[in-house]
Amino acid sequence: MTQNDTFLAAAAALLGPRGLTCDPDLLAPWLTDWRGRYTGAAIGLASPADSGELARLVALAGEHNVTLVPQGGNSGMSGGATPDASGASLLVSLRRMNTIGPIDLENRRVTCGAGVVLQNLHEAAEAVGLRFPLTLGGKGSATVGGLISTNAGGTQVLRHGNMRSQVLGLEAVLADGSVYSALTPLKKDNRGFDLKQLFIGSEGTLGIVTAATLKLEPARADRRVVWAGVESIQAARALLLHAEKAVGEALEGFEVIPHPSLEAVFDYAPDMRSPLEGAHEWYALIEVVADAADAPTLGERVETMLAEAFESGLLQDAAIANSESQAEAFWGLRETVPMAERSKGPAMQHDISVPVEKMPDFITDAIARVEAAYPGVHAVAFGHLGDGNVHFHVISPPGSERATWEASDGKAISRFVHDLVTQWGGSLSAEHGIGQMKVGELQRLGDPASLGLMRAVKSALDPKGLLNPGKLLPLV
Amino acid sequence: MTQNDTFLAAAAALLGPRGLTCDPDLLAPWLTDWRGRYTGAAIGLASPADSGELARLVALAGEHNVTLVPQGGNSGMSGGATPDASGASLLVSLRRMNTIGPIDLENRRVTCGAGVVLQNLHEAAEAVGLRFPLTLGGKGSATVGGLISTNAGGTQVLRHGNMRSQVLGLEAVLADGSVYSALTPLKKDNRGFDLKQLFIGSEGTLGIVTAATLKLEPARADRRVVWAGVESIQAARALLLHAEKAVGEALEGFEVIPHPSLEAVFDYAPDMRSPLEGAHEWYALIEVVADAADAPTLGERVETMLAEAFESGLLQDAAIANSESQAEAFWGLRETVPMAERSKGPAMQHDISVPVEKMPDFITDAIARVEAAYPGVHAVAFGHLGDGNVHFHVISPPGSERATWEASDGKAISRFVHDLVTQWGGSLSAEHGIGQMKVGELQRLGDPASLGLMRAVKSALDPKGLLNPGKLLPLV
Repeated sequence: MTQNDTFLAAAAALLGPRGLTCDPDLLAPWLTDWRGRYTGAAIGLASPADSGELARLVALAGEHNVTLVPQGGNSGMSGGATPDASGASLLVSLRRMNTIGPIDLENRRVTCGAGVVLQNLHEAAEAVGLRFPLTLGGKGSATVGGLISTNAGGTQVLRHGNMRSQVLGLEAVLADGSVYSALTPLKKDNRGFDLKQLFIGSEGTLGIVTAATLKLEPARADRRVVWAGVESIQAARALLLHAEKAVGEALEGFEVIPHPSLEAVFDYAPDMRSPLEGAHEWYALIEVVADAADAPTLGERVETMLAEAFESGLLQDAAIANSESQAEAFWGLRETVPMAERSKGPAMQHDISVPVEKMPDFITDAIARVEAAYPGVHAVAFGHLGDGNVHFHVISPPGSERATWEASDGKAISRFVHDLVTQWGGSLSAEHGIGQMKVGELQRLGDPASLGLMRAVKSALDPKGLLNPGKLLPLV
Repeated sequence: MTQNDTFLAAAAALLGPRGLTCDPDLLAPWLTDWRGRYTGAAIGLASPADSGELARLVALAGEHNVTLVPQGGNSGMSGGATPDASGASLLVSLRRMNTIGPIDLENRRVTCGAGVVLQNLHEAAEAVGLRFPLTLGGKGSATVGGLISTNAGGTQVLRHGNMRSQVLGLEAVLADGSVYSALTPLKKDNRGFDLKQLFIGSEGTLGIVTAATLKLEPARADRRVVWAGVESIQAARALLLHAEKAVGEALEGFEVIPHPSLEAVFDYAPDMRSPLEGAHEWYALIEVVADAADAPTLGERVETMLAEAFESGLLQDAAIANSESQAEAFWGLRETVPMAERSKGPAMQHDISVPVEKMPDFITDAIARVEAAYPGVHAVAFGHLGDGNVHFHVISPPGSERATWEASDGKAISRFVHDLVTQWGGSLSAEHGIGQMKVGELQRLGDPASLGLMRAVKSALDPKGLLNPGKLLPLV
């Protein structure tokens, strides 16, 4: 028996037939990320039933020097859950750990297994009159463990913060097979370092998150969704500041879409319609929400906010969705932008952020520079203006061949964009993480002191490099 | 020249006359903590002007194996900023790094040096119509750096969170003399571990905080302060839940004081008066606030909340402060409790927390158990019920001699209380940190996986053990 055979035999004995497979057909769907950008290989797929089983598996892997790649819904954007091509790692699915609850109504919180799918959590909270506020496009597959490991963002960050802000308690299996368990939240606890922060956003490189206690909000009693036409991205920013002042914390979303991206949506989905008669340079999608106490005055407050904005020239035209289905249609336009842009040809996508107040000038500057430096490309920016986070796509010149263009000009363009965002004091990964996609770029552009700290912490917590090797930080 | 002399000569050349002193008279005030419980010695007192000077000093200390004890306002509760008695450490004051601002009005944030005194920050924010919401008794001396290093709490945590929640960006000097600088906050940034979290609450053991960017809130336009009499701590908890439901996030403070503690206040400060005619088992001090938009309806909402509570039997009597000076007088009663209790004789004080919902039963159970196990003592609990954080004082039998009692029964009682709080799933340090006071207790009762992680991170970031040795974690 090879070393791997010995390990797999021991793992099979530990996990049972439901907990381990080496069947290539069963493994295949999990070896490629959902966008099809990364494909790897693995010695098998483990699906432990609980943190105790996982802890024993990690200890066993340590004894045999087998590396582990944790995976939730396999819906990440940076290849962080896809093993490398060596085939030496064991893929570890957390999907069986999918228990929700019971929901603590008094304290508005719930403990979930890492494998709980976001949409199921939404529904469980709604069923008891509460709400889990974080949401994103992949909610039907993204899991709590993956959301925590990547510190996921989404469209409600403006008001509720990213995944880190939702985590009250956490459980993780460490590289030595011990379990860090801090699921019962204390509002005040100053017994040293806040260790749970280490596991949030570290992409499974410091430990494998197995469960978390999450904050819930009172249910949303009403919302108003507005589609506004504005003359520039600077005007969109002024409108955002006005909205923040006028409705305060009721403002939950503020997305921006440039006119060419809306046209791309109509080319891609001819059934969709613009909420406004005329065309505008930019559109702002604004969501304002209220709980039961504030719901009665919501409509009035939004109308006043818009009337004032119109009077002071901050917006050119605006429509308020008059039904929940129209509100969904407004959001549908925004959510279709990525697919519509992708359908126009090969493109390099960048998930970037700069300080919120610099975003309009950055967008103007970056589009001009990229289009000047790479003639024939077309750059578009859309997304979460309220968070200083914009998805910046650079579409190849018409007729480009995908693989060739991506590997040559595309790669150079990404470096160009990352250089630019770094010069503006921004981040080359706003919400999608580093995964395997941006390891090199982070090493190239990251702050040396930060990189040194990360390397030191990684070596301290996972000295043998067993956990998600090559993700976030390079192999050494 | 001894090794220390060589180091001090080099440090003097680096820091200049304002930056270093070895004069015993100048050193003395900083070698004892403000409560007079810990006294140490040091080879000198360094006061670097900025993070660059501090970075060079730390590198120099590393070369000479000189340990460093960082200190802000010297107003900590656990001896975390007091050097040990060996006299081998250099005391490092951050007090010269006291620059505030400029305040960013649009983004409501400000970058402060570590030496900024909390009260000065309050005043700077108020001067521009904003507010820094964290406050505590020592605000006239506590510094931003100390508040961050200890993850300070206070009386507004219920609504605004502890110091960790206020920190948007941070700068720290690391043990190798490099500078981790992340002062410009990005709302979304997923470039790996959130390193700033490591320096918050780690009491200067992983790095020395030199500056931070802090969140500011809109100014408070109005507040209502209520003093309510309730029949039990369980009733106080029910009143808290009712208030949370009735006024939501406007509830900023909910403190509880038992009747004997109020009597102790009147014994200690005979000029003070009870806001209510009769006596009640417990009192709740409730603060409800509003910004400009919500101020007009504040009074009505508070009166409705109290009327409903009265009707459903949650409270026996209540007074609403009818002026700002009366509001201050209500708070004065609460703030005098610690001194009043201390004046009654030697006492062991415990800063503890349990899950919020368990607090009433814990208080009832713990008082009974301590008084049964140690006949003659008198246990009282008061403080931040809304945070599950209560200051639990055990007062010695009348006539006890301080030093003897504290060293014998007192010490045993603290272990007894810490055992109890651990059994209830709580924390032996809610907001005062570990410092040197609770190092042994944390090792005795802490979760082994957590302690192992802390030790690993400490060794990775400060392999020579230069930073605040013996605080939070024991010397190895």
